[in-house]
Amino acid sequence: VPPPAGTKGTANHPNPIAFTGVGDPREYPTKALLHAMQDVLQRDGPSALEYGTFDNGYVPLRNTIAQLLASQGITAHPDAILITAGSQQALALVCQLLLKPGDVVLVENPTYNLALELFRLLELQIVGIPVDAEGMQVAQVEPLLQQHHPKLIYTIPNFQNPTGACLSGGRRRQLVALADRYNVPLLEDDFVGDLRYDGRTQPALKTLDPGGRVIYIGTFSKMLMPGLRVGFLVAEGPIFTRLVAFKRVNDLTVSTLMQRALDAYVNVGQYQRHVQRSCRLYRQRRETMLAAIRQQLPPDVHVDPPQGGLFLWLRLPPGITCRALQPLASAAGVEFAPGPRFFVQPAEGEGYLRLNFATLRPEAIEEGIKRLGRVLAGVSRV
Amino acid sequence: VPPPAGTKGTANHPNPIAFTGVGDPREYPTKALLHAMQDVLQRDGPSALEYGTFDNGYVPLRNTIAQLLASQGITAHPDAILITAGSQQALALVCQLLLKPGDVVLVENPTYNLALELFRLLELQIVGIPVDAEGMQVAQVEPLLQQHHPKLIYTIPNFQNPTGACLSGGRRRQLVALADRYNVPLLEDDFVGDLRYDGRTQPALKTLDPGGRVIYIGTFSKMLMPGLRVGFLVAEGPIFTRLVAFKRVNDLTVSTLMQRALDAYVNVGQYQRHVQRSCRLYRQRRETMLAAIRQQLPPDVHVDPPQGGLFLWLRLPPGITCRALQPLASAAGVEFAPGPRFFVQPAEGEGYLRLNFATLRPEAIEEGIKRLGRVLAGVSRV
Repeated sequence: VPPPAGTKGTANHPNPIAFTGVGDPREYPTKALLHAMQDVLQRDGPSALEYGTFDNGYVPLRNTIAQLLASQGITAHPDAILITAGSQQALALVCQLLLKPGDVVLVENPTYNLALELFRLLELQIVGIPVDAEGMQVAQVEPLLQQHHPKLIYTIPNFQNPTGACLSGGRRRQLVALADRYNVPLLEDDFVGDLRYDGRTQPALKTLDPGGRVIYIGTFSKMLMPGLRVGFLVAEGPIFTRLVAFKRVNDLTVSTLMQRALDAYVNVGQYQRHVQRSCRLYRQRRETMLAAIRQQLPPDVHVDPPQGGLFLWLRLPPGITCRALQPLASAAGVEFAPGPRFFVQPAEGEGYLRLNFATLRPEAIEEGIKRLGRVLAGVSRV
Repeated sequence: VPPPAGTKGTANHPNPIAFTGVGDPREYPTKALLHAMQDVLQRDGPSALEYGTFDNGYVPLRNTIAQLLASQGITAHPDAILITAGSQQALALVCQLLLKPGDVVLVENPTYNLALELFRLLELQIVGIPVDAEGMQVAQVEPLLQQHHPKLIYTIPNFQNPTGACLSGGRRRQLVALADRYNVPLLEDDFVGDLRYDGRTQPALKTLDPGGRVIYIGTFSKMLMPGLRVGFLVAEGPIFTRLVAFKRVNDLTVSTLMQRALDAYVNVGQYQRHVQRSCRLYRQRRETMLAAIRQQLPPDVHVDPPQGGLFLWLRLPPGITCRALQPLASAAGVEFAPGPRFFVQPAEGEGYLRLNFATLRPEAIEEGIKRLGRVLAGVSRV
């Protein structure tokens, strides 16, 4: 089991710089949320702290989410939305409901490390599909469908974690058509779809899906704040009904106070202003990091600049491994997410690392990349 | 699947009285919690809204819980405590980790409805053990262990849901010894152990357990407020390690803000004062409800007065079923939890209903029981 994402090996450094985490905590609407909680407690009284109903979530929040999705071109009826404890719970509920030990799940390789960790703990058989600059190599999917009869395809089409790749429009249509033809549920994890800095918005798989085979997952963790633990999924039919019942026995309901406060804070206008501000800020930081990489790192590192999201995926120079690099980087006061934790076969990731460009201010980004450059210059190549 | 506990059939009544719910929302420390959140956001800044670490929970809160448990005679090292999204998540994590479809779970019959619902959704084989005034009839357990080889025993030893029965000291020792001899994990759900109004405190199974076979579950939902969604479990060894990893892939972590705010609010002295106040209030309401039952209901209803907790378990007069009673009660503006939802074989519960005596003020309790009396007088016996 890989160590948790937040693990710091830089404890002895006076001024560590961690290219981990998600968004910039200084940008979280902390005060607005606290005011929303006060308003909710005044408005609703103690009922804001009761269980609420054990169904698919606080109705006004589901209405608000439906409006947010509509503003992104995704039509979802509020009754098709289940509020979850972040997108991780949505992922876990879907997998535990649809899959049993030994079942096959198709995933991008590399992919989100805590999805891999979940699949392993559920004793699923994980089959990886390579990723390039246009996202999952969908052309490789059909033979895998025929060979492995997967029970689920898990994909992060927008600004994929960890590669940052965005699935092209053509591949989106092909993938949905394949899921439909082979009758396989498609789990679309849209963890940062809002954070686009350039290029054209691609349609959500959910909107391309004629047969209701796509389960869509969203979250407020990356845009607003991780500590809320509020996410949601969109699905239809018997699977949705079973997911609602399964959520109920798993933890009854998401904190009613959090649901109400979030609903009181979020509306489409406010959310879009927040997204726009974040996009401006994070785009600039992406530029800063890309420029620093060009200036400070050896010319044989490789990065495909992502069009959005939070992460840069860096291929190390030939012969340099994360294993060799990480202790030296920690000692030099710079932290990153090592490649192995994102791969079906961890050893395949030794030549990669993931850098979060959104969390830190430009000066810290430049200093951190400088440190990484010094370490890379000194590490021995095998 | 039974309807959620909060479902109201009294929608058309001008002044419905619902003997459902848990504690009295008017007693929740709403303002104190909000102040705690403000303090935490000022003290910790945005980091109160980050993910935190994906381990077993916020360290200071685990320390506080260990102190609370110690004040109740339960020794638990903070590193043996996992913070969960209420006790329901603790229950779900344990079952999903230890059991697979077809496995046998031994439970009190009747028992907590959402535990039964969980077991059914996980496709477990549920074997019930009858309950009397001293709790689970432990004498019946050994043959069931030999016959069914259960993978888990689930018990609510204090003020059992729904019967209110408290497991006697002798039976506690027998049960722990049996679990030890037959090497079966014992899941102790202590959802309202604090709320004792008379009689002697019994030792937690966890404290009687030499072999580390007991997993203890507690919650702040019943005492402080349900909407927090913060509970915890105590366990040791490899099972604990696996539970922590499983919690992480299920939903990463409980809201860091909630964990910090709860820790800022709760200390042993304050918690005990809150418990004492609640005990005074709820004991009085129990008396009110018992007196109203004696005065207003037919003499052939039966109740074993519970020594604590939230619920009275009422056996209806012979020939009267919940099915016949409930629509009439709803029309008369009184709501209860029908017996069938608490039984392994729901039909066995037709002659019972569960009344919450803690939620409502004395006048409402008296009026509600009066309504129930009128309905019972008019319902036809089969």
